[in-house]
Amino acid sequence: MMTNFSRTHTCGALSLVDLGKQVILSGWVHRRRDHGGLIFIDLRDRYGITQIVFDPKINIQNHHLAESLRSEWSISVQGTVIARSEGMINTKLSTGEIEIQVDALAILSKAKTPPFSICDETVEVHEDLRLKYRYLDIRRGEIAKNLVLRHRAMQAVRTYLDKFDFIEIATPVLGKSTPEGARDFLVPSRTHPGSFYALPQSPQLFKQLLMVAGMDRYFQFATCFRDEDLRADRQPEFTQIDLEMSYATPEQLFPIMEGLVATIFKQCLNKDINPPFKKISYQECMGRYGTDKPDTRFKMELKDLSSVVKDSSFSVFQDQLLAGGIVKAICVKNGADISRKGIEDYTLFVNRLGINGLAWMKYQNGSLNSNIVKFFSDEQQRSIIQQLEAEEGDLIFMIADTYQKCNQALDHLRRKIAKDRQLIPSDSFEFLWVTDFPLFAWNEEDKKLESMHHPFTSPVIDDIALLDTDPLQIRSSGYDLVLNGYEIGGGSQRIYSSELQEKIFQVLNLTEEDIQKKFGFFVDALKYGTPPHLGMALGFDRLVMLLAKTDNIRDVIAFPKTQKGNDLMMDCPSIVAKNQLRELKIKIDDEQFSWT
Amino acid sequence: MMTNFSRTHTCGALSLVDLGKQVILSGWVHRRRDHGGLIFIDLRDRYGITQIVFDPKINIQNHHLAESLRSEWSISVQGTVIARSEGMINTKLSTGEIEIQVDALAILSKAKTPPFSICDETVEVHEDLRLKYRYLDIRRGEIAKNLVLRHRAMQAVRTYLDKFDFIEIATPVLGKSTPEGARDFLVPSRTHPGSFYALPQSPQLFKQLLMVAGMDRYFQFATCFRDEDLRADRQPEFTQIDLEMSYATPEQLFPIMEGLVATIFKQCLNKDINPPFKKISYQECMGRYGTDKPDTRFKMELKDLSSVVKDSSFSVFQDQLLAGGIVKAICVKNGADISRKGIEDYTLFVNRLGINGLAWMKYQNGSLNSNIVKFFSDEQQRSIIQQLEAEEGDLIFMIADTYQKCNQALDHLRRKIAKDRQLIPSDSFEFLWVTDFPLFAWNEEDKKLESMHHPFTSPVIDDIALLDTDPLQIRSSGYDLVLNGYEIGGGSQRIYSSELQEKIFQVLNLTEEDIQKKFGFFVDALKYGTPPHLGMALGFDRLVMLLAKTDNIRDVIAFPKTQKGNDLMMDCPSIVAKNQLRELKIKIDDEQFSWT
Repeated sequence: MMTNFSRTHTCGALSLVDLGKQVILSGWVHRRRDHGGLIFIDLRDRYGITQIVFDPKINIQNHHLAESLRSEWSISVQGTVIARSEGMINTKLSTGEIEIQVDALAILSKAKTPPFSICDETVEVHEDLRLKYRYLDIRRGEIAKNLVLRHRAMQAVRTYLDKFDFIEIATPVLGKSTPEGARDFLVPSRTHPGSFYALPQSPQLFKQLLMVAGMDRYFQFATCFRDEDLRADRQPEFTQIDLEMSYATPEQLFPIMEGLVATIFKQCLNKDINPPFKKISYQECMGRYGTDKPDTRFKMELKDLSSVVKDSSFSVFQDQLLAGGIVKAICVKNGADISRKGIEDYTLFVNRLGINGLAWMKYQNGSLNSNIVKFFSDEQQRSIIQQLEAEEGDLIFMIADTYQKCNQALDHLRRKIAKDRQLIPSDSFEFLWVTDFPLFAWNEEDKKLESMHHPFTSPVIDDIALLDTDPLQIRSSGYDLVLNGYEIGGGSQRIYSSELQEKIFQVLNLTEEDIQKKFGFFVDALKYGTPPHLGMALGFDRLVMLLAKTDNIRDVIAFPKTQKGNDLMMDCPSIVAKNQLRELKIKIDDEQFSWT
Repeated sequence: MMTNFSRTHTCGALSLVDLGKQVILSGWVHRRRDHGGLIFIDLRDRYGITQIVFDPKINIQNHHLAESLRSEWSISVQGTVIARSEGMINTKLSTGEIEIQVDALAILSKAKTPPFSICDETVEVHEDLRLKYRYLDIRRGEIAKNLVLRHRAMQAVRTYLDKFDFIEIATPVLGKSTPEGARDFLVPSRTHPGSFYALPQSPQLFKQLLMVAGMDRYFQFATCFRDEDLRADRQPEFTQIDLEMSYATPEQLFPIMEGLVATIFKQCLNKDINPPFKKISYQECMGRYGTDKPDTRFKMELKDLSSVVKDSSFSVFQDQLLAGGIVKAICVKNGADISRKGIEDYTLFVNRLGINGLAWMKYQNGSLNSNIVKFFSDEQQRSIIQQLEAEEGDLIFMIADTYQKCNQALDHLRRKIAKDRQLIPSDSFEFLWVTDFPLFAWNEEDKKLESMHHPFTSPVIDDIALLDTDPLQIRSSGYDLVLNGYEIGGGSQRIYSSELQEKIFQVLNLTEEDIQKKFGFFVDALKYGTPPHLGMALGFDRLVMLLAKTDNIRDVIAFPKTQKGNDLMMDCPSIVAKNQLRELKIKIDDEQFSWT
C-alpha cells in the first residue's frame, strides 16, 4: 500500500535512459493482460502509456490487489524502471522498451463500466453519447489532442502579437442589444426590471472605441454569441481572434496577419507557410470560382461562355441569355472517363441546387462529343475548347442560369468533383486574400440595402460620391482571408468620420431615432479626434478545426453544444426556479415548466 | 499636405540618436504653444509625447494650417528630427532633447471640445462622467497604463503556466443554472421556450470534469458572473485565473502558485517577491487578526484577555464573559499620544460596527492609566501588560463582545489605526496562506449548514468521521492566499469520491431530487475513475488593482460597470424591441418599456 500519488513522471516520459530509477506513476488502467502468472497493465495518462508489471514472486500482495483492477480505475504505482525482454518491445510507444516492476500499488478510485470503450479508438460512438459523457470522450485521446493543439495555437498568437505591441484587452460580455444581423442573446437585469443586457455578437464597437481611446494596437480572444439556427460548423458561442490597429492600412496589416498565421502553422504543425498570400478581387473571384471563399488547392476554374455560345442554336442557352442569365462552364481534366451514370449523378446534384440541367461535352478523338454538340458550329466548338483549355480526354460541364445560381451551382459542383476525383492534395494549405467587396448588398426580401460586412466598414474613398446615386456600385475597404475554401477571417478599414458613419446608417435605412438609440454613443465618440484605423477577426474555432484536420467544429471545443444549442452533458438550457423568474420580474408563457 | 499617416515611430521613441532622420508621427494634439512666431505642438500617443515645431520660415502653408490645430485633433506629421535649443530641453520626457521640424502636416480628424481635460491629469473628474466618456478617460493615460499592466500580467501568467504543462482551456459561458451561493444571470433560450442558460459563477464543475477527462493540468482566465448587489470592489462580471491539477497535494501546488505570483510582480513591477509564503491556520489567524484575510504588513495583533480579566470587578467584561463572549485587545505602539477626542472617535467607529464600548488603558510613567484601571488588580494589570507586550507610551484598546463581533471590530479598528498612524509601509507586499478552514459554517438565518468555500471542497480526511456527529468541527482542505489584507485567491483539494460528494450534499440539506437535478451529471462523472485533484482561483482584477496601486477595481477594467451594474457609456442594460421578447416567449411585468 502507498499513500503518495504524486507522480515523479508522466506515463509518456520513461525510456531506457531511466533504467533502475525508482518512480511513481499515476493514471488509468488502459488495458490489462494476464500472462504466464504475471499481470501486465497499460497505465495511461494524456502524455502516453507505460506498461507496469505485477510479479507474484516479487510481491504477492500487490499481485493479488492487481487482480482486482479493471478498466479506467485510477491508480498509482511505485516501482523500478526495467528493460522489457526482447520479444516484448513495442516500437509504437515512446515507452515501449521499458516497463515498471511494481513495489507498491494504490487504487485511487474505481470506475463503473464506461458507456463506450475508452481504449479502443476505432469503435464508432454516436456523437450524442460522446457529448453526454464528454469527460470520457476527452479521455479517449483525440479531443484531448485537439485541446492541446488549441492551447498551442493560443500561446503562439499571444506571443506573436505581443511582439508587435498589440495589447490584449477584454471587452464586456454583458453589453447592449443592438440587433442588426443575427439575433442577440438577452440577459434580464434584476436591478433594472424590464431592461436587458445582450451578449456580444462581436466586440466591434469596443475595439473601435479602444482606437478612439488611443490604445493603438489591441487584440483579444473574444467569445462571441449569436442566437441563430445553427449550421454544422456553428456554435451559439464561438471564439475569434479579434484585433484592431490605428494609423495603418491593409499594406501594414496583411503582413502582420500573414506572419501570425505562419507562426501558428509553424508552432502547431511544424508546417512552413510562405507569405505573402495571393490577393484577388471579389469580382474576379466570383468569376473564376463562383464563390468568395474558393478552395484554390486545385484548378478547374469557371469560364464564362456567354459570348461564345450566344449565337448557338441551343435554345436552353438562348433562353437563359435572353432572360439576362449567363452560361458558365468548368473543364474536368481527364474527365471523359466519367460514365453516363456519373454524369446523371452530377446532374441530380445540381438539380438539388435549383439548376434545371447540366450540359456536358467530352473531348475525345480530337472533337467534342455529346448529345448537344450539334447545336454548336465548328467555330463555336473551337472557342469552347480554347476558353476552357480543354485537351484530349477532358470533360466539360456547362450551366445556363442567373449569374448567382450559375456561380453557386458550379462552385458546389467544382468542389464535389474535386473530392470525388481526389484532386485535393492533403496536407496542403492555400491562403488567399479576397478584396474589393461591394459595400452593400440588396436584400430582396426586405427591399433594402444591407452592409456586405458591417455598417462600420469604410467605402473605398474614391467611391464615396456614389452613396447618393448608385450605392450598389461602391466598393468597400473590406477583406477576407480564405484558407482551403473556408473563410477564416475578415476585416476592413473602418469609417472614422462621424458624418460618414451617420450617412451610411441613413443609406441603410436606419431612422435618426434608431441611430441615436443603438449607436448614438458611438457616433458621438467618433467626434473626438478619431484616428484612422482598421482591423480584422479570425474565426479561431474554425482555424483550429483546420489545424486538427477534422471537419467537425465540436471536436476542437472542450464542452460544445449541439446544433440545437443543447449541452447534453449538463442538460441545459433547463427550467429554473420560480423565484429566480420572480426576482427578474419576467414571466414565461408556460409557467408549469418552472420548478420551485 | 500628405496622405500617408503610417507612422515610422511612436511619440515616445525618438531621442538624440535619431537626429537628422526623416520621420512620420501620428497622434493627438496634446498642447499647443505659440512662441516667437513658431508654433509648438506636443504630439501624444500612448507611448509618449514628442514636440513638433512649425516654422513659418520653413513652410508658411504648414504654419498656417497649424494655426487651426486644437486640442485632441488627430494629426499626422512628416519632418526631421532636430535637437532642441539648450533652454528648451525637457528632462522629464524621454523625447525631451529633440523636436520635429515639420515638412508636412495632415489633419486626420478634428475634435469637439472634450467634456473634461485630457491633458491635465490633475483635474478631478467625477467618475460617472469618466465612465460615460470612457474612451476619453482611457486617452488621459492612467487607465491606459493600467490596461497595459494587465496585459503584461496576463502574458506573464500564460508563459509561466505553459512552462508547467498547464493547458489553457475555455469552458462555456452559456451553462446551467445551479444557484447555490450568489444569484445567476439567466439567458432565455429561444429554441427551448421556458428554458434558460445561466452565465457561470465560476468554472468549478468544468475544471473538475477536465480532471476526470484526464487533462491533468488546466488553467483559464475565466470570466465569471454574479448577480449580486455590488460592493465597491465587485463587478457583475469579473476575471479569475482559474487552475486545477491532478495527482497533487497543496505541497506541490503552493510553490507553483508562489512562483506564479512572483513572476507577475517581477515582470510587471520589477519587484522581487520571495517565496515560500508564510502559512497560518484559520483558527490562529482569527485569533491573532480577527479576520481570515489579515494585512500582515504591520503588527498590532489581537490578544485574548478573557482568562486574564475574568476575575476583575469590571462588570462590562464580566457580563460578556458570563454570556459566553470574550475580551480581546490590541496594543497601539506609542499610542499614548492619542487624545481623548481621538479615543472618542475610535469609540464611535466601533459603535458603528455594533460594539457598545471601547475600553482603553494608557501605559504611562510605569503604570496603566484610564477610567477603568481601578477595576483590575495589580496582578491583572501586570498580566495585561505582559500579554500585550505593552511598553511605556503605548495605548491598549479592549473590546468585550461575542467572539465574532470582537474579532470583526478589532480587525477594522486595527486597520483603521494603522492607516491613521501610517504604520503601513508603501510598496510592501505581504503574502500569506490561510489553511485549515472549517468545512461548514452555520447559517443562523436559514438554520442550516453552509459550505465555507463550496460543496466540492474535500474535508481533511481524518475529520470525515465527524460528518454525522459534529460537522462544524470538520476542517476543510481549503486554502486562501492573502495579500496586504485582500483575499486574492482560494482553492482546495476536491472531493473525488462520488459517495463522499453525495454525503456532503446531504449534510448541506439538498434533497435527492435537488442533487439529481443540479449536480446529477457531475456526481455521475465522479464514478468513472476520478483522480485526486486540487485547484485554485486567483481574483485577477483585484490582483491587477494591487499591482496598479489603486483601490478602485474599475480602474483596471477597460469598460467597467457601476455599482448598480450600469454601463454608462453604452447606456445598458436597456429596453429591447418587443419582437425580441416575443421570439423568446417571455413577458416583462411592464410591457410599455419595450420599443418596437
